[in-house]
Amino acid sequence: MNGAESLVKTLLQNGVDTVFANPGTSEMHFVAALDSHPEMTCVLCLFEGGTSGAADGYFRMKRDVAGTLLHLAPGVGNAYANLHNARKATSGIVSIVGDHATHHLRYESPLKGDIVGISQAVSHWTRVSPDAACVAHDGAEVIRAARADNGQIATLILPANTAWDPATGPAVSLPPAALTRPSSAEVAAAAARLKTEGAALMIGGEALFGPLRQLAGQIAAETGCRLMVDTLIPRISKGAGSAKIDQLVYPVDPKIAQLAHTSSITLVGTDRPVAFFAYPGKPSVPEPATCVIADLCTPRMDIEWTLQALADAVGVNAQSRPRTYALDLPDIPTGTLTLDKVGRALAALLPENAILCNESVTSGFHVMPPTATARPHDLLSGTGGAIGLCMPCATGAATACPDQKVIALVGDGSAMYTLQSLWTMARESLDVTVIVFANKGYQILRDELTNVGVESYGQNARAMFDVENPTLDWVSLAKGHGVPASRTDDMDSFVRALKAGLDSDGPSLIEVVCP
Amino acid sequence: MNGAESLVKTLLQNGVDTVFANPGTSEMHFVAALDSHPEMTCVLCLFEGGTSGAADGYFRMKRDVAGTLLHLAPGVGNAYANLHNARKATSGIVSIVGDHATHHLRYESPLKGDIVGISQAVSHWTRVSPDAACVAHDGAEVIRAARADNGQIATLILPANTAWDPATGPAVSLPPAALTRPSSAEVAAAAARLKTEGAALMIGGEALFGPLRQLAGQIAAETGCRLMVDTLIPRISKGAGSAKIDQLVYPVDPKIAQLAHTSSITLVGTDRPVAFFAYPGKPSVPEPATCVIADLCTPRMDIEWTLQALADAVGVNAQSRPRTYALDLPDIPTGTLTLDKVGRALAALLPENAILCNESVTSGFHVMPPTATARPHDLLSGTGGAIGLCMPCATGAATACPDQKVIALVGDGSAMYTLQSLWTMARESLDVTVIVFANKGYQILRDELTNVGVESYGQNARAMFDVENPTLDWVSLAKGHGVPASRTDDMDSFVRALKAGLDSDGPSLIEVVCP
Repeated sequence: MNGAESLVKTLLQNGVDTVFANPGTSEMHFVAALDSHPEMTCVLCLFEGGTSGAADGYFRMKRDVAGTLLHLAPGVGNAYANLHNARKATSGIVSIVGDHATHHLRYESPLKGDIVGISQAVSHWTRVSPDAACVAHDGAEVIRAARADNGQIATLILPANTAWDPATGPAVSLPPAALTRPSSAEVAAAAARLKTEGAALMIGGEALFGPLRQLAGQIAAETGCRLMVDTLIPRISKGAGSAKIDQLVYPVDPKIAQLAHTSSITLVGTDRPVAFFAYPGKPSVPEPATCVIADLCTPRMDIEWTLQALADAVGVNAQSRPRTYALDLPDIPTGTLTLDKVGRALAALLPENAILCNESVTSGFHVMPPTATARPHDLLSGTGGAIGLCMPCATGAATACPDQKVIALVGDGSAMYTLQSLWTMARESLDVTVIVFANKGYQILRDELTNVGVESYGQNARAMFDVENPTLDWVSLAKGHGVPASRTDDMDSFVRALKAGLDSDGPSLIEVVCP
Repeated sequence: MNGAESLVKTLLQNGVDTVFANPGTSEMHFVAALDSHPEMTCVLCLFEGGTSGAADGYFRMKRDVAGTLLHLAPGVGNAYANLHNARKATSGIVSIVGDHATHHLRYESPLKGDIVGISQAVSHWTRVSPDAACVAHDGAEVIRAARADNGQIATLILPANTAWDPATGPAVSLPPAALTRPSSAEVAAAAARLKTEGAALMIGGEALFGPLRQLAGQIAAETGCRLMVDTLIPRISKGAGSAKIDQLVYPVDPKIAQLAHTSSITLVGTDRPVAFFAYPGKPSVPEPATCVIADLCTPRMDIEWTLQALADAVGVNAQSRPRTYALDLPDIPTGTLTLDKVGRALAALLPENAILCNESVTSGFHVMPPTATARPHDLLSGTGGAIGLCMPCATGAATACPDQKVIALVGDGSAMYTLQSLWTMARESLDVTVIVFANKGYQILRDELTNVGVESYGQNARAMFDVENPTLDWVSLAKGHGVPASRTDDMDSFVRALKAGLDSDGPSLIEVVCP
């Protein structure tokens, strides 16, 4: 057995059975080892941004880690933006990166690069395996690190000789470290605070879906506090039956207005709210100066324990009834296409238990609101502000949950970043309906230029904001990747295409020509 | 005037008038400043790998720096692979990266990231501008750094407030530092060494094209040494009239054979030859153990001075005649398509002064040889082993040289990495003919798996090496980006498409269905 085989066996024995891969020559022995273990699922992505985004989407739905297989420093570079997004989403990823053999690193070969440097610029945990005898143990360590603290980016760098030299066998799994918990005094203080006028409970992480979301709703019902969630969230239960929650909006001034009368924000599983960007003369944080920010449980602490302790402290019981969204399906709109109508059609047709991946940016402001009362579903959003997450994330979510419908809502600017994921959807027959909002530009930048005080703009700004001349043809782009597609510019054609996408089992793409 | 305006004026006054851009909100004031200076050419790339690859191609042809405009750490991540390639090509790039306003960085906002960390993992020079008053001077410094030592990756990070706060004015240009030169004794020793049996002169950088290439040929003629060049080179004059030169091949064993009887390798403008990868039981360096490696002039030293000093020392004069390639155009092949025939057709039709960008990897082994005796042209190749360079590099070369025909030869696996560059070619009406070799897989990895001793392989290796099920449709992919395209599977259709591409002024794409 060589090092690579010992690592593959370690991954499998530790429950890591899916790898999103784009390997190169330095990973050949690892590929050979994967090849002799068909129980490992290897999903090829034609660009590494697809691998890291897919591993992120996989974690968000599966609540466990997948691997990515990357090729030296440029491979990590290509994966970087979606590793950044995954880091901000508190997703765990086991990132395996091949390097040159140790003895080869003294020479300036073409692919020699600073893998440790780029990895440390985004990973929580980075290790270079020193020799083949260590690879199995390092494999168990990278898995433990990826699962630690609710999910981390953990990177194991494998010089080629550590893969091809002899090793003894796989390593046993390492027990995860216990999560940090707040003190009883902190919980009691939070319980008292939530009952005061103007108190908000802002939740994140696993508190946003499943039973914990309902528990949070019960806490709000018992205390009278306002239940809140930040703007960008990795995963949230939405639709009928989920506990009502106020979400902070993206623009600074309305965000400030949302928190105008807030006396305290108790955080469980989320960081304090912050403006996405700084603007001249505007504050970085949206709450009033008098508002107390109480960091009861960070995203890295024990969210489940904290929420249960808080529920006990405020007296939640079987009779505590959270306010929930009632099912309210809109009529399916017809006629001229508008984004609001697209949102209503989506809300009307969204199947129960669907997974919605949203990176529709400005279009989403119009499309998303009606889905609040749709059938129960999960929503996954961009968390790190790096565009190009949506289609990879949908790929990973669909891989993790083959029995659920996945719908990806994505702006054309964002979709272009990682359009190669369309091919992986086709290759793996993933049940994803991609809806591209073709507004022919970076609409958010047009808005942001206005935000910084520029009222009209000229040729260079237009050159950088408009994606026109030529117009992207998404039907051809999808077809080129092997995904059937249609262009829709009225509600009838959109509804027909959406129904067809949801009725079929494989991927499809709908281009929405934005009015 | 604000900091952003002072920087744009500094760039223009220092001769940087082209920026390959994909900006975001943190760069809005810089965009506004660019917008008020229409004499700055702003080229939008729909993915940052396009910006860095284009700046690399621009430098290779223009011999001066362009800018890239990137958005925080994920923007640098997306640009990273082609920054790596540019670094290995000794190309200079002025990389401007927007960051959050300084006061905003204390908060964990979505896009906060380790820009300095990722920049330092690939840049030679990184600086964070501390305030608006410093931005102009820092701009002059980043330009000087990018031009230093024959070309460096130089990154200036601009917190948003340094762009929007008041500044005084542009900075004057800073004199470049003098390049290091070898001593007279080293030159004399090299001159003597080149006259001995088995001596090789290996050249790189600007010695590979223009008058220095001929000078190197004259040195070889006077000394009887063998003139050589490494495998991966940023730019080389090729075709009729250029001095004959032996290029090292990619595979290790033939590379070792090429150097079997070499007693010394004198390096001018290039690093010592190294195996691309390490393999079990094979050496990292290809020369015999007895061969002297003489590092006369590194890629960062004064190549022109050194080559002239060496020429003087060996007695080059007006009568020194280099061995050159004679024009020998093949007949245009017909019938069944083979890669060798494609190479002959290309050699026959290649216009004088064309720029050939080559990332055709395994297909190139067959396609490139006939171009040795084609009309005089420049060849640009991948230098850092990170695939996805070709189409961005062609974009930059065509921007730098609007009067020259550009032909991009690219494998399908490589082309998928940065296919968004097709749109930029269309938007800018760049005169690029892209030839995609569709062999439906990472052919080099199939070969490399054999190299590490695996004779047959199974489902997981096939899943990661084959780009099939579905087959990529390059005609549709090109059409989607606004580039006309055709699929060719016999020589008549290929020749017709190539002639049409060369006859038109804008971009086009030819999919070659590999036999």
